[in-house]
Parts: sequence; C-alpha cells; structure tokens
Amino acid sequence: MSSWRDNVRKVEPYTPGEQPKEEGVIKLNTNENPYPPSPKAMEAVSQIKNLRKYPDPAAVKLTEAIASYHGLSKEEVFVGVGSDDVLAIAFMTFFNSDKPVFFPDITYSFYPVWAELFEIPYEKKALDQEFKIRIKDYAGENGGVVFPNPNAPTGILMPLDEVEEILKGNQDVVVIVDEAYIDFGGTSALELTRKYENLLVVQTYSKSRSMAGLRIGYAMGNKDLIRAMNDVKYSYNSYTMNEPSILMGAAVLEDEEYFQETRKKIIDTREWFKEEMKGLGFTFPDSKANFLFASHEKFAAEELFEAAKEKKIYVRYFDQPRINDYLRITIGTKEEMEALLDFFREYFKEK
Amino acid sequence: MSSWRDNVRKVEPYTPGEQPKEEGVIKLNTNENPYPPSPKAMEAVSQIKNLRKYPDPAAVKLTEAIASYHGLSKEEVFVGVGSDDVLAIAFMTFFNSDKPVFFPDITYSFYPVWAELFEIPYEKKALDQEFKIRIKDYAGENGGVVFPNPNAPTGILMPLDEVEEILKGNQDVVVIVDEAYIDFGGTSALELTRKYENLLVVQTYSKSRSMAGLRIGYAMGNKDLIRAMNDVKYSYNSYTMNEPSILMGAAVLEDEEYFQETRKKIIDTREWFKEEMKGLGFTFPDSKANFLFASHEKFAAEELFEAAKEKKIYVRYFDQPRINDYLRITIGTKEEMEALLDFFREYFKEK
Repeated sequence: MSSWRDNVRKVEPYTPGEQPKEEGVIKLNTNENPYPPSPKAMEAVSQIKNLRKYPDPAAVKLTEAIASYHGLSKEEVFVGVGSDDVLAIAFMTFFNSDKPVFFPDITYSFYPVWAELFEIPYEKKALDQEFKIRIKDYAGENGGVVFPNPNAPTGILMPLDEVEEILKGNQDVVVIVDEAYIDFGGTSALELTRKYENLLVVQTYSKSRSMAGLRIGYAMGNKDLIRAMNDVKYSYNSYTMNEPSILMGAAVLEDEEYFQETRKKIIDTREWFKEEMKGLGFTFPDSKANFLFASHEKFAAEELFEAAKEKKIYVRYFDQPRINDYLRITIGTKEEMEALLDFFREYFKEK
Repeated sequence: MSSWRDNVRKVEPYTPGEQPKEEGVIKLNTNENPYPPSPKAMEAVSQIKNLRKYPDPAAVKLTEAIASYHGLSKEEVFVGVGSDDVLAIAFMTFFNSDKPVFFPDITYSFYPVWAELFEIPYEKKALDQEFKIRIKDYAGENGGVVFPNPNAPTGILMPLDEVEEILKGNQDVVVIVDEAYIDFGGTSALELTRKYENLLVVQTYSKSRSMAGLRIGYAMGNKDLIRAMNDVKYSYNSYTMNEPSILMGAAVLEDEEYFQETRKKIIDTREWFKEEMKGLGFTFPDSKANFLFASHEKFAAEELFEAAKEKKIYVRYFDQPRINDYLRITIGTKEEMEALLDFFREYFKEK
C-alpha cells in the first residue's frame, strides 16, 4: 500500500553547534559575539508600533541604513533572514548553469547542502596543505564561485589581490564572497563591486554586530544582481524581515563607536590568546576571524573537546577527514579564554 | 560572449497588495487586522536579552506555547516565518510524487508559485459556479492536496464533514488545510489530525492575532509529519525564527480574552457590513473570513477599485479571469467600513 511517507523529501539534517541550556556554561562553540549588541538595539524596540500590518517587503529602512553605512544606494543591498537565507537565495538566483559551482573542500558546510537542494552541480576544490585556498583551482570553467573570506573553520584571510585574481578569471559567472567574519581584521571585497558587476559580497549581523538572535544577513553588489535576488525572493515569500529586525537592525548601525570598541576587544583577545595557545603547544593557521582553529602536538582534538565539555566549556569539534585533529574555538571575553587556558593547563598537567 | 546574466533564474515576481505610504489612507486591501495585537506582545519585549546568541533553532518556547494553546505536544507543531514559509516547506517536504498536487483554480496565488519553484506537478480544480470547492474533484489519483479553508479570496468555508470527505479519499498523500482565516467563524480541522496522520493544518499570526509584522505561521499535525518538516528546514537554514518572534509570539497566546474580543468585533462588523452591502446592490459568497468578496450588479469592480483609491480607500482587485468582477474588501473597524459604504453611496448617487 502506498503511503504519504513515500513522497517525503530525503535530507541529511544539519547538526548545529550545541546550545547547552544548563547554567554556568562557557560557550565557545558557535562563533557568537561575547558582547551584547549596541544599546541602540533595545532602544529601537519602542519604535515597534505597527505589528498588525505586514512589514515593508523591501525592508527599506534597513536596506537604506546598510547602504548608507557602506556608501551604497539601497538598490545595491539585499537583506535576508541571516546570511544563510541570503546565500541560499543567491545560490538559487545565480547558479543555474550546467557547469559546476566551485567552492573549497573545507569550508562552510551549507554550500553543498544548498547546491543539492537546488540541484546545482558543484566541485569542491581542495585547500592546500596549510589550509589555504589555491586560487589557481578557480580558473577552470565553472557555473559560479563561492568562498568565505576569512574561510571557516580555518580563519585564514585571503588578501584582496587574490580575491581580485579569482574575479579576473571568472567574469562570466557570479562570484560570491561570504564575509561573515570580515570585521575581525580583514579587508572587505566591497570596493571590488565597483569594478566587477558579477561580484556579490555577503555580510551578517550575527558575528561582529552581536545580533545572531535577530537573524539579519545582507548582500551587496551591483543593482542588477540585487534586483535579480529580490525578484526571486518576492516570487515565493514577499515578507520575511519582521518589524523588530528592520528597526533594530537599522538602529545599531548608528553606533559606530560601540561597534569599533567591541570589534577591537575581540581582535585584541584573539591576538593575546594566540600567544597563550602557542605556549601550550597548540598550532593553528593565523586567524583573522573571531575563532581559532587549533590542533595540539600531543593531545587529540576529540579528547580535548570531550574533556572541556565535562568542565562545561563548549568548543567545536568536526569529526571529518583532514580536520578531525582540530578544535574551532570561538573568541569570547578574556575571562572566558582564561578559563579555557586554565582548563588546558590543568588537563595537560594531569596527563 | 557568455555572461552571468545567462544563468539568472527566471521568475515572475509576485505583486503584493499595495502598501500606500501616504497619510489618512483607509487600508482594506491586505486582510490585516484593524486592531493592534494584545498588549502582552509589547510587554514581552523586555524579555529580549540574549540577542548576541543564536536563537533556539527549535523555537521551543513558541512551539510549546502554540502546542499548549491547541492541546497538542510540542512535537506536533512546526513554526516558520509566516505561513508562506510554513507552506513552502510543507510543499518541499511532502510533495515529491510524480503525480500532480491538486488545489482550486481560484485560491491563494502562491500555491502554483511554490509548485513551480520545487518542480512539483500540479492540477488546478475549478471551483463551481458559486465559487465552491467541488470535493469530488479531489478524489482522483494525486500527489497531495492543498486548499485554504475558508478559501481565499472567496471567503467560503468548507464544513468539516466535507474536509473529512476529502481526507477519506486521500489517505496516501499529505493533505494541507491552510487555515489562515479560520478564526473568523470557521471550525478548524485540527481535531481530524487525531484520525488522519496525513493531515497538516496550517495557521498564522498575521490575521486573527494582529501580528503580520512579526511573521509567524505554524503547522500542526502528527509527530512524523512535523519531524519531516523540521528535518528539511534544519537541513538548509536552522535559525529562522528570531528572538522577538519567539518571545512575543508566545506571550500573546496568554491573552485569550483580548483574542476573543477582537475576533468577535471583526465577525460582528462583517455581518453588519454584509447587510449594508446587500442594500447597496452588491452580491457575494457568504464569507467566514475577515474579508468580503463582492461584485456589484451595475458597476464594474475595476472602476470601483480605482474610484475608491482616488478617495484614499484601498481594496483589492484581481485582474484575472472569473474574478475580475469582484472586489476583495478586508473587514476593518466599523468606522472604516462606514467610510467605504459612504463612498459607495456617494459614487452611486453621482452616476
């Protein structure tokens, strides 16, 4: 007998980083910002007054604020429910070629997921031995290119001249640079959008803006790219950005001082943490993100991951080829990093 | 020379109801609730305190509140960014057969859009001369069934025994009953989910809960249906419900008195408005929704639509076969409906 179950889509569910509910946990596993968002966020709550109405489908207040912050016009900005939403819509909008889309083998885990969801052929390009993206791999014929900069989970930043090298070799497809972590020491490819009409730069409020809980991501690029994404988005769900996101998202951009201050604190903590970690026998690629991807000369990553969890310190471990010797450790407050270092010192001493 | 433009997805952009920005407009065109949400919504804003963290991907606080309100367990509730998101995920999850999905020819305009987006074959079943769904049309072999109850834009309610008739004939596919307007006088098919494990009931906060601006929709059904939807959703975007939605959405369910009061006001206004409209020469199917789908014996709908807009009264007109003699008029406050009736009286007198 046939059943509705026969026609259920088969998927491999994504396993997000653990969100422990117990008290007293030190949470360094999902690259969240340890500092709260600018106080402007909560101040903006008082502006919420029209919940009974549909929100502006174009979220103009928010797109204008982002555009003005980055020196663009609002027609050059697309907003979505976190950069996952933005990237998924970009895949759906731009990657409709028979040729494969290229992205690194070690990278954000959702790229192959969206490619499969939208039946986009793709080819993973192996990082080199030092976990760097080999730009010559992206020269071949393809249906598009996407990579994070800095890459995740490695934290390695690609210099802007190499980003441009990739763009030079790929002018007839859309190239997406996913800059979720760019504010922690990188230079955005945004200026290259003036030169390359096929470049889409994606950023997010979830890391440097401390607003993962609000779900805001955005893409920047030339007006035709942005219009194409809006056409696709409006065609199947017109109202995705809710009123609190629009208002609070716009408000925090007014507080540049707070943004620079918290961003700098994380960078400073990261640089100090790198030195401490070296001293403990860890090695890692040089990170320009708000996390460190670290391996220990003596102790297995999985063992350290489990032992830290016992002590209520959560870091991220990926049980995958090539990276299963590494821990991805989010940069929290200095106190949180001290606690983790203390744990390592204690653990290494006992062994 | 090839261009990235060659691989841009071709879509037909959706045209949402106009959202006029000018002052003094009477807006009866997008079926919004004329009353604000329960004060509990804004009270809940003070609970927002963890924006820096990712929201709970399962939005447990909200799913539990909805489940408890409807006498279900939280495993029987799926939440999404408006019922558009919920319905799109349901299409993607359940409609993977080679056989066509059935839905009415005159109905919510996004059904064919999602079907095309996910390459789902579909067949539109014509409403009868009185705009009723002919339940025998849904007896044939199909890949699934979806219809709104009450239907939109007709406002006609299908009695529960007819809903069950459709379910009886379709036990090997998923049947989705889209109850966006059920709270304005209909009986939900929710109780039938106990009997039919293939029934998914979808509701929304955008109409009877006065929270279109927050974007919350939800599906109710047996645990296996809900789990399948969550698997699909988590597989490509884990965090869609933001913190304000989760907190404010849960809070308003505590205010049953306010809900009943505003719901009743709209029903009372609608019933009074029907009588007034009859007196003016309008005919319409009997509506159990928060809108009336009305045609005039002498005046063309398009003409009335344009003339009303001149007077800053917005109703909805669909320039489509079979329904281009009709206006869809949202039930607002009694004062708003008086203003519309006054406009009609004045307009008819002048002609």
